[in-house]
Amino acid sequence: MQKRPELIALFTDFGVGSHYLGQLKARLIAERVTQPVIDLCSDAPAFNPRASAYLLESFLPYMPPASLFVSVVDPGVGSDRRALLVKDDRFWFLGPDNGLLARVVARRKAVEIQTVELPEVTARSRTFDGRDFFAPAAALVCQGRPVPGQPVFRDSLVGADWPEELAEVIYLDSYGNAVTGLSGRGLSDDLCLRAGGRTLPHAETFSSVSPGTLFWYVNANGLVEIAASRANAAKQLGLTIGTSVAWGD
Amino acid sequence: MQKRPELIALFTDFGVGSHYLGQLKARLIAERVTQPVIDLCSDAPAFNPRASAYLLESFLPYMPPASLFVSVVDPGVGSDRRALLVKDDRFWFLGPDNGLLARVVARRKAVEIQTVELPEVTARSRTFDGRDFFAPAAALVCQGRPVPGQPVFRDSLVGADWPEELAEVIYLDSYGNAVTGLSGRGLSDDLCLRAGGRTLPHAETFSSVSPGTLFWYVNANGLVEIAASRANAAKQLGLTIGTSVAWGD
Amino acid sequence: MQKRPELIALFTDFGVGSHYLGQLKARLIAERVTQPVIDLCSDAPAFNPRASAYLLESFLPYMPPASLFVSVVDPGVGSDRRALLVKDDRFWFLGPDNGLLARVVARRKAVEIQTVELPEVTARSRTFDGRDFFAPAAALVCQGRPVPGQPVFRDSLVGADWPEELAEVIYLDSYGNAVTGLSGRGLSDDLCLRAGGRTLPHAETFSSVSPGTLFWYVNANGLVEIAASRANAAKQLGLTIGTSVAWGD
Repeated sequence: MQKRPELIALFTDFGVGSHYLGQLKARLIAERVTQPVIDLCSDAPAFNPRASAYLLESFLPYMPPASLFVSVVDPGVGSDRRALLVKDDRFWFLGPDNGLLARVVARRKAVEIQTVELPEVTARSRTFDGRDFFAPAAALVCQGRPVPGQPVFRDSLVGADWPEELAEVIYLDSYGNAVTGLSGRGLSDDLCLRAGGRTLPHAETFSSVSPGTLFWYVNANGLVEIAASRANAAKQLGLTIGTSVAWGD
Repeated sequence: MQKRPELIALFTDFGVGSHYLGQLKARLIAERVTQPVIDLCSDAPAFNPRASAYLLESFLPYMPPASLFVSVVDPGVGSDRRALLVKDDRFWFLGPDNGLLARVVARRKAVEIQTVELPEVTARSRTFDGRDFFAPAAALVCQGRPVPGQPVFRDSLVGADWPEELAEVIYLDSYGNAVTGLSGRGLSDDLCLRAGGRTLPHAETFSSVSPGTLFWYVNANGLVEIAASRANAAKQLGLTIGTSVAWGD
Repeated sequence: MQKRPELIALFTDFGVGSHYLGQLKARLIAERVTQPVIDLCSDAPAFNPRASAYLLESFLPYMPPASLFVSVVDPGVGSDRRALLVKDDRFWFLGPDNGLLARVVARRKAVEIQTVELPEVTARSRTFDGRDFFAPAAALVCQGRPVPGQPVFRDSLVGADWPEELAEVIYLDSYGNAVTGLSGRGLSDDLCLRAGGRTLPHAETFSSVSPGTLFWYVNANGLVEIAASRANAAKQLGLTIGTSVAWGD
């Protein structure tokens, strides 16, 4: 395993424009972190660690080794929910124990999991753990220093019992494409997907259908996605985060 | 005092996605600036230096020493409004003299203030001072070179007479939380805040109330903020930038 | 000519917040690219290489030498449209052959143009060439290594026959300003611009008219732009990408 991260990837529901990402980054700089920091995803489903967990999982195959994911979708901030550090031979993950890391733990076989306990950070009235807690924790990891905490059993994690796949919309992108939590592996092109009252055929890619046509395809991160060529599928079908989808005619 | 900035923090109303931030950063690179640049806030209240001034002030305690703030909320760009450089033992600030820097000047006791005069930049038909004026000025500061200009008296700044606090909404974030210009220091938890026709109780943090509940709390930057647990408070209350708030029953 | 780029500028319709920009950047880091990367524009007109081409062209005079533009507005991704590398004594450009680079080729006199052929990248089911194709191609350019491909004649490019100017709205920014594809060079201030059923006078800059006033001006990138002082011109006039404009009374 790499001793230290070579990249920090921020996975959050902070949105863009506001000061949340900026203050988190300023804190990393204040802590003398020198690794490059990228905004991997800043509009993960807000307040929704479950949908976010499946989205985060789908990104793993395309991330460089020695990436540290700072993952903050955290409606329970300020409560006594645990904070976690997960590591294996390829990645590190920091995040709240609310299910957000459940899918990456399930996917990665041999992981070490521990709580993160930073006594100098006051527990009360914390509403911005991204800046005040996870950023200094990330700095410890980046500097190869020990992170205080206790070992955690894999089965004790929130979300440890979640299914392999989620037959729901878990993300809407700016084009109006709707990502589902369904794996795209080994699917027949003959399958049809039902969503928003419609039955959608498969297409290989956007340019293989005429403009406006609705279809499903396996997206660039391996998940089943509902899209339209040069049009907004989510709007046409009335899809939102959590909308159910199903295979069938 | 540090001789040179170690970090450039951009505080603007440029929005995200468009080329404004990108062109400003390209200009910094063209000027051989090597300090890290972060987007501290890119959706400061548009055309509104007054609300923006209180927001910027609230960020100071959480920024690393030796930060240079390039601050551009500048509806008067192209007019003869002055450009300012403010510095003290901790920070540098560049921005227009339209009130945007008034609150940081008020908060920081011993500051040096000067105009910024870059004769090579044509005054007429300037509409993008962020790129064409403040970026080269920032490069001078970053390189420890003198910045041409005249000393300015603190009391002559636009906004020098603005109050310590603003009983208004000064910012809406992507979750729908509404930040006010009221300081959170020394407030009793028994206080109620009136906003949007409703009277809101205090809560410590998001997870201490049930989903949907409206409340006020002291946000992570020390300001009074109106929020709802896992819901959009601004939409529910009809709050916009400038909406008045008041303590009371 | 510089041997290697000193800056990577991303020009895309990916939007912000989503994982598209982040995954592209992660891939650049995985490929050991060390040049700084900036988001030059992330909300280029979606699915619209033609409008995007004129916007990209307008940015060139303000970019540092030795910039590499990674340009992805690519509704035909996955089809057999060619991928291009364009270079001259100042810039490199990577992008699809769908017109997106047509205007920069027209503007730059002596350019070399070639296809980009990366055999190891599978052609089928590619839907994210930004990450999977253009990022590794950019890495080759950044490392000064040869990029596999064939020479391309300038006249064979999609968009080679497009006009010098476009009397249409090609971009809407977050303030509601509407950029047109009309050059601002040599225009009389007496001209009026017709757009959205209104006839708009010229103004030098935002601060030279009263709040709310609609006007046209030559924007900071040399294009004719429709704006209102401290207000949203596009909304007031009902302008969208593609809306025609014309000089006249």
